[in-house]
Amino acid sequence: MAQAAADVADDSGVRVGVAPQDADLEAVAETGVETWAQHVDPIDYGSNTGHTLAETVAEAGADGTLINHSENRLKLADIDGSVQAAERAGLETIVCANNPEQIGAVTALGPDAVAVEPPELIGGDVSVATADPDIVTDAVEAAANVDEDVDVFCGAGISSGDDVDAAGDLGASGVLLASGVAKADDPRAVLEDLVDPLV
Amino acid sequence: MAQAAADVADDSGVRVGVAPQDADLEAVAETGVETWAQHVDPIDYGSNTGHTLAETVAEAGADGTLINHSENRLKLADIDGSVQAAERAGLETIVCANNPEQIGAVTALGPDAVAVEPPELIGGDVSVATADPDIVTDAVEAAANVDEDVDVFCGAGISSGDDVDAAGDLGASGVLLASGVAKADDPRAVLEDLVDPLV
Amino acid sequence: MAQAAADVADDSGVRVGVAPQDADLEAVAETGVETWAQHVDPIDYGSNTGHTLAETVAEAGADGTLINHSENRLKLADIDGSVQAAERAGLETIVCANNPEQIGAVTALGPDAVAVEPPELIGGDVSVATADPDIVTDAVEAAANVDEDVDVFCGAGISSGDDVDAAGDLGASGVLLASGVAKADDPRAVLEDLVDPLV
Amino acid sequence: MAQAAADVADDSGVRVGVAPQDADLEAVAETGVETWAQHVDPIDYGSNTGHTLAETVAEAGADGTLINHSENRLKLADIDGSVQAAERAGLETIVCANNPEQIGAVTALGPDAVAVEPPELIGGDVSVATADPDIVTDAVEAAANVDEDVDVFCGAGISSGDDVDAAGDLGASGVLLASGVAKADDPRAVLEDLVDPLV
Repeated sequence: MAQAAADVADDSGVRVGVAPQDADLEAVAETGVETWAQHVDPIDYGSNTGHTLAETVAEAGADGTLINHSENRLKLADIDGSVQAAERAGLETIVCANNPEQIGAVTALGPDAVAVEPPELIGGDVSVATADPDIVTDAVEAAANVDEDVDVFCGAGISSGDDVDAAGDLGASGVLLASGVAKADDPRAVLEDLVDPLV
Repeated sequence: MAQAAADVADDSGVRVGVAPQDADLEAVAETGVETWAQHVDPIDYGSNTGHTLAETVAEAGADGTLINHSENRLKLADIDGSVQAAERAGLETIVCANNPEQIGAVTALGPDAVAVEPPELIGGDVSVATADPDIVTDAVEAAANVDEDVDVFCGAGISSGDDVDAAGDLGASGVLLASGVAKADDPRAVLEDLVDPLV
Repeated sequence: MAQAAADVADDSGVRVGVAPQDADLEAVAETGVETWAQHVDPIDYGSNTGHTLAETVAEAGADGTLINHSENRLKLADIDGSVQAAERAGLETIVCANNPEQIGAVTALGPDAVAVEPPELIGGDVSVATADPDIVTDAVEAAANVDEDVDVFCGAGISSGDDVDAAGDLGASGVLLASGVAKADDPRAVLEDLVDPLV
Repeated sequence: MAQAAADVADDSGVRVGVAPQDADLEAVAETGVETWAQHVDPIDYGSNTGHTLAETVAEAGADGTLINHSENRLKLADIDGSVQAAERAGLETIVCANNPEQIGAVTALGPDAVAVEPPELIGGDVSVATADPDIVTDAVEAAANVDEDVDVFCGAGISSGDDVDAAGDLGASGVLLASGVAKADDPRAVLEDLVDPLV
């Protein structure tokens, strides 16, 4: 799948990243695709067995990291610490959150981007543009109210190029998705459909 | 101590609240002092054994609740849920946070007030005005950038009336303190000193 | 409901306890019924805002405390610390767990009793004796293998006197239940039915 | 360091394992040294962004995994789930715990081995044999009381071959250490000293 993403990114010129588990970071990075960690911990070098050091994932080839993904919600103080750790290691950051209020909150912590993930749309087939377009426009507005330089991604309700197009119309600068590609019979075809509106 | 706080509030006209453990809420509320819970959980009526329902502490006499105190840091999504639960139960809210960035973040969740608690000053004798005045002014600015209607409290580095005065000069609308009163030989005298600049 | 439990205990001679939220402990204890906290934290006197001190709930009238209830799962080290804190404060302890292996584990921490709560039976109407009798007999055996002096309670799948009877036949020394009484139109009648086999 | 450990294991015939962060598992495994993950999550394939799947670390070359390390304490139910996930993926398991009571507890969950880590000895230079020999013998006894087939390791207070020797005399089947090797100027020399009593 990482190779397919690398190829689709090359062919289309569209920015495509892959976020595997830590143990697969190096193998994914070797395909040349933009590589993202799924999480880093708010720690520095030291006694942190069982935790993820930002520098370690950067050395394994990660270009950036997700933080506070809906499947791994963190304490506010740890989101702040993880953003700082990622910046220290030269990793780009996308911090996820559930709703516009929380999007405003994480924007205040100074990440590169934030991603709004309406809980009811995660992992499903329902398009965000149909089900809950206001959550994207409200998230864009909430982020802009705090810091206009932070991009807003749509982190759920995306499974096709039409959804990507709709998310862009609602103000999103990009999208996050998982099951729509990961469970596809032909991931390359799905990826080609997803980037099509951006070519 | 609750009775002393009730008396000092009555005599001075200054707003004084006490935040006991849940099991002591009713007894504290009976003194007539403004009574605050230390925490409420992001839950509604239902199967939540071992958690604190906002309605239960409100019925026991709480007027408000602290959320995300430095000794009880919460997930961002749970701070959001706890603020909503408190509002549903008619409780006023003060959300605590470590630094100006996090103060900006919690302000975006719409509480009545926020309190900045520089970790290095908690539980000590060092005055915030001496040790780290910028953290208060920066927190006031970070909150105002997000929502001008949210008050900012100073949650550490306060042990005397002079500290209260200094915190006010730095832009704080109030203060939180614990050990300075709780460990005092004469809590009433300490409380009288604390409210003196506000009379 | 606490008054009903107090009356049923008095009339039947059966041991009945009620485990309310902390803010209601004092009011429940005043009915004379045996009173249990839902949780205590692994802490001593000190800086623990938002946490529950065992001594505080004991002073409010609690005779014992649940620990690690299925709705409030704890770290192993914290279960250990909470059992010790409860003993320090003179509270009896019942530690809950999901399955026979975990029942063996918590028995090793030296509580007064343990309660097995099959996750699929919690909050439902299905009788443990019908759905999963082996989990109770296996839990009784797992506990006895570690420490024969620790009682085993059945913590789910109980809603009638017949269920209490069946749990006893499977080796349980008592039962925990919530929704069966809490949501009943006539809690006193349900309680009378529950204790009937033990009179 | 992994290469030094591989060489020392080959030369001495002593079993030596290395437990890196996930992103380094593959590189460590390529040295041929026995490779251990620091943690696996209690999850199966599915929506678990930011968590560690046992199968993923096994495919990256891990032979086993630590669980509940002192720097990453878990909920009891999650220790149970992580042991099961590791076994499903064919990983050997060592579950860590603070004291003899908790060692008895984790032994009941059926891991391959347990490791006792007296908190006051972690990361320091003090030998367990000098500081707290009873904690090792008590842990060995607590584990044997629950399941005689589970090995007990000494997880702190080890920095030399003499400490390894002493731990063996106290009943430990092996040792865990970190800073003693990781911070050494000459890790290979430290490793050679550590295995010397076992050659």
